[in-house]
Amino acid sequence: MHHLDQELDALKQLLLSMAAKAKAAVEKAVKAVMDRDDAYAERVKAEDDVLDQLEMDVDEMSLQLLAKAPLASQLRLITVAMKVSQNLERIGDEATTIARRGLELSKEPQLKPAIDLPRMVQMTLAMIDDALNAFVQGDVAKASALVQRDKQVDAINRQIHRELSGFMVKDPQQIPQCLNLMTVSKCLERIADHASNIAEEVIFLYEARDVRHPGAQASPEPHPS
Amino acid sequence: MHHLDQELDALKQLLLSMAAKAKAAVEKAVKAVMDRDDAYAERVKAEDDVLDQLEMDVDEMSLQLLAKAPLASQLRLITVAMKVSQNLERIGDEATTIARRGLELSKEPQLKPAIDLPRMVQMTLAMIDDALNAFVQGDVAKASALVQRDKQVDAINRQIHRELSGFMVKDPQQIPQCLNLMTVSKCLERIADHASNIAEEVIFLYEARDVRHPGAQASPEPHPS
Repeated sequence: MHHLDQELDALKQLLLSMAAKAKAAVEKAVKAVMDRDDAYAERVKAEDDVLDQLEMDVDEMSLQLLAKAPLASQLRLITVAMKVSQNLERIGDEATTIARRGLELSKEPQLKPAIDLPRMVQMTLAMIDDALNAFVQGDVAKASALVQRDKQVDAINRQIHRELSGFMVKDPQQIPQCLNLMTVSKCLERIADHASNIAEEVIFLYEARDVRHPGAQASPEPHPS
Repeated sequence: MHHLDQELDALKQLLLSMAAKAKAAVEKAVKAVMDRDDAYAERVKAEDDVLDQLEMDVDEMSLQLLAKAPLASQLRLITVAMKVSQNLERIGDEATTIARRGLELSKEPQLKPAIDLPRMVQMTLAMIDDALNAFVQGDVAKASALVQRDKQVDAINRQIHRELSGFMVKDPQQIPQCLNLMTVSKCLERIADHASNIAEEVIFLYEARDVRHPGAQASPEPHPS
């Protein structure tokens, strides 16, 4: 194995450990909301620095690798790694927002609307796992499926938004809690977006085709391969 | 001037025209909301494809330039260009969300809370301009000031959020309009975030120091320069 390939493997490993931390942050933030557990929320806030630092580490490593005259496919891997890491860092930011809303919610009287947050959480966490698995395994089919699953999460978010709006109109006392839960739902929807963005990068990486904006006109020039 | 420098100039020009389109999208979207003008909202939605395409064009051009053995400073410029373009594309996405909310707001009875949306709009639009000017002129001081101005926009967003929440509690009939206006305000706050992200990239580009996450531990290894 060439030296550069070894370094690229190290870069992939760094992304995998970053993904594990991003997913753990989401799990803890959701637990803070569901169990009204402020200690979990505070941990998420305190640990966000770790993801920030990892994003900078990935960028630094990527810039060093880009300076070593990589082949076109390696070059693609490096730029994709930078984008994957940015999406993981943003997942951490969304987890922090969820945690902050959890801290507010635990000060307010508990609200029990029958909203489908647990299913949304489960789907979103699975999407983070599958996006990274698709990346490591080069599984383009799995990556493509994720883009579809993101649409389901969007639909659940809209449904939750509608239900909470209705709830607010019926019982204005509950407006603060409903607004906080709307934000939690929106954050989960954005986390699923980030997983879907990673999946799109995986497709680009392994098929050298850009699927990010199917509506936009395809460029006549192919990506360098 | 070397051939690669000329191509890098072309890349900068592409980003400037992209920035002009992103800013125009925000202006039109805000006009749609303020004037209840559905035609403007529809134009923003229809024109978002252009920004999507430009983002892909920048990425393609950047990958081609990265393959030409750029110097370390050129390499930094290229990776920064990819990030700037991504932020501009996201500004377009936020403009589209504002436009969609404008379409909903114009179907609802007009709400006139005394919220400070016009000032927020003005500050946010100026931030897009200044971020791109700082990029083109290599003006690190201007870029640094933007990171502070982003905090002011965050504060206005929180203020608007509080005012609209209070409004909803007092008059639950207005909840749908207030929710739409909250989203518009949040979108503007995110647009200012993107301008601030661009400013951070400018600082990194010209000073080779990463200011994105001041809370995170500084890495002992300097960026390649």
